[in-house]
Amino acid sequence: MDYNKASLDQHRLHHGKWEISSKVDLDSRDDLAIAYTPGVAAVSNLVAADPRAAYDLTMKGNTVAIVSDGSAVLGLGNIGPAGALPVMEGKAILFKRFAGIDGVPLVVDADTSEEIIHAVRVIAPTFGGINLEDIAAPKCFEVEAGLQDIGIPVFHDDQHGTAIVLLAALHNAATVVGKPVEEMRVVVNGAGAAGTAIARLLRCVGHDPSRCFPVRDVLVCDSRGIVSPQRDDLNPYKRALLDYTNTDARSGSIHDAVRGADVFIGVSVANALSPDDVTAMAENPIILAMANPDPEIMPHLARAAGAAVVGTGRSDFPNQVNNVLVFPGIFRGALDARATRISAGMKIAAVRALAATVSDPQAERILPDPFDRSVATSIAEAVRNAALEEGVVRDGVPEVP
Amino acid sequence: MDYNKASLDQHRLHHGKWEISSKVDLDSRDDLAIAYTPGVAAVSNLVAADPRAAYDLTMKGNTVAIVSDGSAVLGLGNIGPAGALPVMEGKAILFKRFAGIDGVPLVVDADTSEEIIHAVRVIAPTFGGINLEDIAAPKCFEVEAGLQDIGIPVFHDDQHGTAIVLLAALHNAATVVGKPVEEMRVVVNGAGAAGTAIARLLRCVGHDPSRCFPVRDVLVCDSRGIVSPQRDDLNPYKRALLDYTNTDARSGSIHDAVRGADVFIGVSVANALSPDDVTAMAENPIILAMANPDPEIMPHLARAAGAAVVGTGRSDFPNQVNNVLVFPGIFRGALDARATRISAGMKIAAVRALAATVSDPQAERILPDPFDRSVATSIAEAVRNAALEEGVVRDGVPEVP
Repeated sequence: MDYNKASLDQHRLHHGKWEISSKVDLDSRDDLAIAYTPGVAAVSNLVAADPRAAYDLTMKGNTVAIVSDGSAVLGLGNIGPAGALPVMEGKAILFKRFAGIDGVPLVVDADTSEEIIHAVRVIAPTFGGINLEDIAAPKCFEVEAGLQDIGIPVFHDDQHGTAIVLLAALHNAATVVGKPVEEMRVVVNGAGAAGTAIARLLRCVGHDPSRCFPVRDVLVCDSRGIVSPQRDDLNPYKRALLDYTNTDARSGSIHDAVRGADVFIGVSVANALSPDDVTAMAENPIILAMANPDPEIMPHLARAAGAAVVGTGRSDFPNQVNNVLVFPGIFRGALDARATRISAGMKIAAVRALAATVSDPQAERILPDPFDRSVATSIAEAVRNAALEEGVVRDGVPEVP
Repeated sequence: MDYNKASLDQHRLHHGKWEISSKVDLDSRDDLAIAYTPGVAAVSNLVAADPRAAYDLTMKGNTVAIVSDGSAVLGLGNIGPAGALPVMEGKAILFKRFAGIDGVPLVVDADTSEEIIHAVRVIAPTFGGINLEDIAAPKCFEVEAGLQDIGIPVFHDDQHGTAIVLLAALHNAATVVGKPVEEMRVVVNGAGAAGTAIARLLRCVGHDPSRCFPVRDVLVCDSRGIVSPQRDDLNPYKRALLDYTNTDARSGSIHDAVRGADVFIGVSVANALSPDDVTAMAENPIILAMANPDPEIMPHLARAAGAAVVGTGRSDFPNQVNNVLVFPGIFRGALDARATRISAGMKIAAVRALAATVSDPQAERILPDPFDRSVATSIAEAVRNAALEEGVVRDGVPEVP
């Protein structure tokens, strides 16, 4: 099927994919008097007196803004807010389909991180959470950090959603090849938003190590090779990677990096990994090649070169490593807990819950089907419980008379 | 019926009134590939290349943000953003019900006009229009003025929606009593957002007088009486009213103002007008008493004191003067025209179209029923045509291949 043509036809026919609807009837004067004035005044007074009541009595408790400046959209790069809108509409309807959450696309015209932060702070009372999406590094780090105190969860899916699904995939792949995750050597190719978040989660940065799975040895590569202390071209965000990766100060190319490694995680570009690279890895290597639409190495080439487990971002190969497995459940759990942020413990709970949805991992089944509705439910429950356990939740919402 | 209790029950049961939905199926891998990645990339590329294509291919062309800081909500006053959310949800579902428009409530936490202006500018690429709602004067004037150049219509409904429906009501009431509108003496009680907008529209301020209906004589009163040059307690916004009202510099109380007047328009508080005031007006006076929930004078008292036509904001009396007659059609027309702003001509077109929906005005029928679906359609067509005629529209949107 020509997905491009089908997508253009679909968008032209419907003028996008997203619409709103009313949960209540508006067919009589009584209907209007209940849903709107004068009856709504009683609801407004109650929420004004204690804004926490908004979680029970308004859209807030089920609604997430999907905020993007369009600076790093899919494989398209910096296409700006208008171009990002079709993607954010897609994200919004995925939220509804997989977790019953009302997603509101908000594409923003902003030159600086500060402008995005300010705008999100101003509109925050409407929402129970903020999903940051397709914002380029390092702006995404600045925006997320600048919004952690607004009292609702702010989660950059390209960082943390990707890291969570990859860590769950890695755990089940480790079971398949019979190696403990903790003893693996992992190479992450890509040092932007996703690569950084993956490296942090692999090394349990910001996590309680006793509740995490710290991988012994992680190397991160960018387009110029291994991120190493010898390099003088690193921005502050890449330099910070050296606090917890490349502990023995190796340098070299991606090809040097993968030699003897157990795992290759690609969040980079097509054909970044060759069959010779796979052959040079440790025995039974694991390849998670996420470049879109064409992976760092095609699965049949990787398998022929000796890979034991191969995952990609694509739906037409086995082991699709897809954020849609994570973000609906993460936000469902956070909203259900009335979480004030997404804590480290909530992320790890999501990793464990997602990995556990596959009871008997196989080389071609390390992750569940994206259409399995129980996945979001399992993750939501685990995330909600972690939020309550860690106490990162709003105080009890008042009883409504 | 106890509308307060019914409204609380409804909001608690449904957790608000507003939700989103998908216009397309998401049940298979092909569905995902068309609505989301990889197919959506073709749509994003096209919109990125020419953002005007967003009107055809995304939610933008049918979506309006409903922005409020909760500083002047219904009869409740400054209750803040959380308390305003139930009202904005109501507005959003009315937009959908009466004009098929997707309204997005956005309650904002902002201390200054500049903060609201900045946030709306940043999120504007998502929307085809901005409905400002329940923002107190003078902030509402500043915010609206500060957003007129953003390339999409920005319309403060409490000002202009109210003024439009009142002017249409006045025109049909004038037909009933057989007096030309132009020769009437009108008293507007209330000098805030609505009162100011009504006075401006009555006097055709900002309009081409040949296409408007300038009323000869308008007095505006606030809680201290007639807004007059003799007063030294007027803020700059009230002082500006003297440029086009009270041309013979009268002073005194509201009771002095209405003596001999043909029309009383109340956007003030309950019981502001007495039966003796009505008796002191000109023959066959017209009373449009909009205070909520209790009007400036109850209709039976006004009629007993000699009023020829009485309208209120209430659905349980004849002649309900309700903004819902206007804002759906105004925005439908503006969106259909891809208008860049709401011009004076578009407002007057809405007045004429709304007045014309009542073919034979009677004392108890100067406005149509709010549930008459043809009202929004008629206004939309008139507003769209006015926008095209005046050229306040975006250039032709490119053909989508």
